[in-house]
Amino acid sequence: MARDTRQRILDAALALFNADGEPNITTNRIADELDISPGNLHYHFRTKAHLIEALFADFERRMLELLSAPEDRAADIEDIWLLLHLAFETIGAYRFIYRDLSDLCDRHRGLHQRFKGILRLTMESAGRLCDDLIEDGRMQASDRELKATIRNIALVSTFWLAFDQVQDDDIRPGRAAWQVMSLLSPYLIGETREQMEALAGQYAEL
Amino acid sequence: MARDTRQRILDAALALFNADGEPNITTNRIADELDISPGNLHYHFRTKAHLIEALFADFERRMLELLSAPEDRAADIEDIWLLLHLAFETIGAYRFIYRDLSDLCDRHRGLHQRFKGILRLTMESAGRLCDDLIEDGRMQASDRELKATIRNIALVSTFWLAFDQVQDDDIRPGRAAWQVMSLLSPYLIGETREQMEALAGQYAEL
Repeated sequence: MARDTRQRILDAALALFNADGEPNITTNRIADELDISPGNLHYHFRTKAHLIEALFADFERRMLELLSAPEDRAADIEDIWLLLHLAFETIGAYRFIYRDLSDLCDRHRGLHQRFKGILRLTMESAGRLCDDLIEDGRMQASDRELKATIRNIALVSTFWLAFDQVQDDDIRPGRAAWQVMSLLSPYLIGETREQMEALAGQYAEL
Repeated sequence: MARDTRQRILDAALALFNADGEPNITTNRIADELDISPGNLHYHFRTKAHLIEALFADFERRMLELLSAPEDRAADIEDIWLLLHLAFETIGAYRFIYRDLSDLCDRHRGLHQRFKGILRLTMESAGRLCDDLIEDGRMQASDRELKATIRNIALVSTFWLAFDQVQDDDIRPGRAAWQVMSLLSPYLIGETREQMEALAGQYAEL
């Protein structure tokens, strides 16, 4: 029962943070939404920071699971699309984190360090993937291009949602996945590039 | 004399906003910094919003000048580098705008519309540039790649600074210019691509 309340608080907080921005939502507003007393909410989460930390931990767990998916074989282009799509749906589900990232990182130093960890892992995964593709003769890029591309993959992955929001555009994880794939696309060779083109046709309009 | 005070207020506000984030700086703090009375400050800027608007107007004027630079001839790669470098130095000079862009746009609807205008112009300029390069046979890309690349140029241009900040990295306009140029680089052909490679060597380390 207590566990149910805890989860209901997390769900309501996530929905409100996503809709109106985390700084604009008080814990009292969340308690109101659930029709529970502020005391009951504070029993589960002593401060708003604890609530934010618990939501961030859920998000982090999902992202780390995705980024460290076991690879018993070299990833093909379709696997990468799927991974990006899942990651970007997760980012969409926790979009309050990405909405004002600098501000969130300023106010919660602990989360800042953990977010940097996710970024580091993103760049490592992207780097490993590119190395695999180059080794298999499916991709060609200079070291300097590779370095910039890996940085751009992390940058576009992190800020596509804020970019859609600033433009008053719909949040579209499929289009965002293509935005990232298009960073790799021109470096791909032969059959692999054709495979990418075919998949892009399906994803870019999502 | 009044004009001097007005400019001194703008300069102090910009420096404080950039250093500590605009939401963390009150107009009293700015008056303190200049050793003037709050009343004197309010004579020049009735509210903090007016002060932000005046700074944004300076920024906007500089960006629009850059983006609408007359082109009596087709731009070459070196011109584009220079343009990006100047634009990114301007973004660095007004970095408080880019630090928490979503938040700023939420709180100042008028600025949001004007920022969207700058974004639109950025994408139009990038599109025109790509069209020129393709027409001259210096670039090759599918329509779908072109569309994604233009979006990525605007996205990386808008968020490179927030990305550097989230990573606790130095703010480096030269590296950011290369981040954007590297989006075009793999689509360039022959001599133009070689020219890009040569320039990248100079800029990427800045």
